[in-house]
Parts: sequence; structure tokens; C-alpha cells
Amino acid sequence: MFVTFEGIEGSGKSTQIKLLEQKLVATGLSVLLTREPGGTPIGDQIRQVLLDAKNKAMVPECELLLYYAARAQHIQQKVKPACDQGQVVLCDRFVDATMAYQGAARGLQSQFLTQLNDYVLNGFHADLTLLFDLPVEVGLSRAKKRADQLEESQKEDRFEQEAVDFHHKVRQAYLDLAKNNPNRFEIVNADQSVEDLQKQVFKIVSERLGL
Amino acid sequence: MFVTFEGIEGSGKSTQIKLLEQKLVATGLSVLLTREPGGTPIGDQIRQVLLDAKNKAMVPECELLLYYAARAQHIQQKVKPACDQGQVVLCDRFVDATMAYQGAARGLQSQFLTQLNDYVLNGFHADLTLLFDLPVEVGLSRAKKRADQLEESQKEDRFEQEAVDFHHKVRQAYLDLAKNNPNRFEIVNADQSVEDLQKQVFKIVSERLGL
Repeated sequence: MFVTFEGIEGSGKSTQIKLLEQKLVATGLSVLLTREPGGTPIGDQIRQVLLDAKNKAMVPECELLLYYAARAQHIQQKVKPACDQGQVVLCDRFVDATMAYQGAARGLQSQFLTQLNDYVLNGFHADLTLLFDLPVEVGLSRAKKRADQLEESQKEDRFEQEAVDFHHKVRQAYLDLAKNNPNRFEIVNADQSVEDLQKQVFKIVSERLGL
Repeated sequence: MFVTFEGIEGSGKSTQIKLLEQKLVATGLSVLLTREPGGTPIGDQIRQVLLDAKNKAMVPECELLLYYAARAQHIQQKVKPACDQGQVVLCDRFVDATMAYQGAARGLQSQFLTQLNDYVLNGFHADLTLLFDLPVEVGLSRAKKRADQLEESQKEDRFEQEAVDFHHKVRQAYLDLAKNNPNRFEIVNADQSVEDLQKQVFKIVSERLGL
């Protein structure tokens, strides 16, 4: 089973995905935790180019194609083989992140995005997508606190610098995707304690797995 | 004016493009010499990922999208602005290289290649393409001699290792592209001396420039 985790900055999905991994492993399942962009040695090299704060001159078309280059590698080299072997694959961000960040919020042509998805995914899709939803202001405040704990040199992640209205568009795009794909999506309220959120996440995933 | 240089390994195009640059600069023209993949700081980072011999696991879809990510950056950040300012832009490999290497020789879906070209080029194209044509065996023998002069650590370029029949497909794909785009293409016989070839190249380009 292939489960993807989506949400705006500060939604807590990266913490939750690790907690879920521990719980699933404790039940005896074989779990693969991975993320996008990255997830493979080649994908990690591409991730470095994407997230390098010095690369401010990157045009949107270049950014989108780098994401999909890493994704093609990730799916074929890692995600599909793991699913084929019966592992539960948990992925921190996937196609919906592109649709929300590059598509809706940055306004890239949706027709080409569809063609790109057809080419790279070739029918492959997540079985379940957990959307960690919360007000943008709460998420950005959390992300800012986290950034304050980092060294100055690590703070320059290009995406943390985006404006608040950009994140509003991303949140709305995610909610629209969930509405249009009700069987695949589960929306969880990410504005609650780590423990309560974890209980809800485990319940949803274990039901889908038939545990 | 935007001039691209294409040909199989060992066709001598990289030597010829530098000689042409010197001659054009000597006539008082402003010339920009560039190459693909690469041509920008971001493109050069992508080039490193593409040409890294350790990246043998790279899937064809990843490779194609990396080329186009670098290309989008190159066109928008460097080639178009230079053309707009009246420079003569000389580019070592461009779209035809993708069509020949990834499209025809590696068998990638041509429908998606067309969509990708539409998205990244958005109508932009070379004014003139010089195809340096020669028998595959002659080109590979030249490329091998060049490789023998390199340090062992530099020899691992993934593309020099391709088999001879692959290069035959690439050569034929280039010739087909020239046949289908007779106004843009000029085929030059690359199996002659550097000096004779340079004279022919300069004659073609200077006529197009109206020198």
C-alpha cells in the first residue's frame, strides 16, 4: 500500500509520518519511509539543486521539471518495487504537493501538468493520501519557531520564505484536491496535539490496511 | 541570431564552435558561446547530475526531464536575453540532440517530447542548425583518442560508453531531422580537416548573417 502525506508548512506531517512508521513496524509490518523531492541518491542530488538558496534565479519551468525528474526516479527505483514486495510505503509529499505548490499557487499550466503526470506516473497513484489541514497562520508560526532553532546557514530554504498569501492558495488547492478525490483523500485536523493527531492517523491507516 | 551545433561524438563540433566564435568576434560581432546541458549556474548543477558516472541507475524519464529543466533555465536566463540584445548565440547541442539521443535512439515517447518542447520552448527555436555529419566509426575513433588523453577518473562519462549501434541510430535521427527541417538545417561533412571544415562553417554562418 502506498500512502502519501500532504500539508502546508508547519502542519506536522513529517513528525506524524515517523510516529506512524514506528507504530506500523511494531505491528509487524514492513514499512518504507520516504520523501519527495529526493528518496533516491539521484533524487537527493536533484533535491539539493531545488532547495539551494543560492538558486534564486530558477525559473518555474525548471523547478517543475526537476521535481518530476526526481519523481520518475523515485517511483521506478524505490516506491513501485517496495509496493510490489508488499511493503507499506509512507511518502512525505507526492504529486498533490506539485499540483498545490507549482500548479495552483504558482499558476503553471495545468494542461502540461496533466501530460507530465501521465508520462511520469503512467497510471500509478497513492492508495491513500492524508491531508494535514490547519490555518496557514498556525502552520507558518510553527515553521518559524522551527527555523529559529536552526543555524543561520540552514534558514535559507527557499520555500520557508514564501509569503502568507501563497500558503493560503496552497491550502485551498489541497482542499480542492481532497474534494475532487474523496476516495483517496482523508483530511485530518492538524491543529491538535501530536498525541491526538497520531491516534487519528493510526486509526485511518490501520482501517485501510485492515489491521 | 541563434545558431545550434549538432553531431555525434567525435564530430569536431566543439572545436569548430570555438574557432567560429573567434572569427565572428574578429569581424566585430558580439558573440555568446554556450552549451547544453548547462549554460547557467543552475544548468551546470543539473549537468553534473546528468553526466556523473555514478548515476548509472538513472531511468530514461528522469534523464529527459533533467535535460529539459536545464534547457528551460538556459533559454530564459541566457539564450533569449542574449538574442534580444542582438548577440549571435552559438550553442553546442540543443533540442535536436534530445530528439536524436533520447527520442529516436532511446525510444522515448515522441508525443510527450512534442508536449515538452511546446511547454519549454514556447515557440522559440534555432535560426540555423549546423549538423556535423560523419561515419559513426570515424567519430567514435576520434572520441576514443580524446578519451585516451584523459585521466582515468575523467573517462567515465556515461555517453562515451554507449555502443556503436546506438550512435548509428543517433546519426540517422539527426539526418532525418535535417531532411524534415531543410530551411533550418545545414549539413556539413565533418570528415575533413579542421581548417577546411572551418572555412565551410564560416561561409554558411556569414552568409546567413549577411556579412
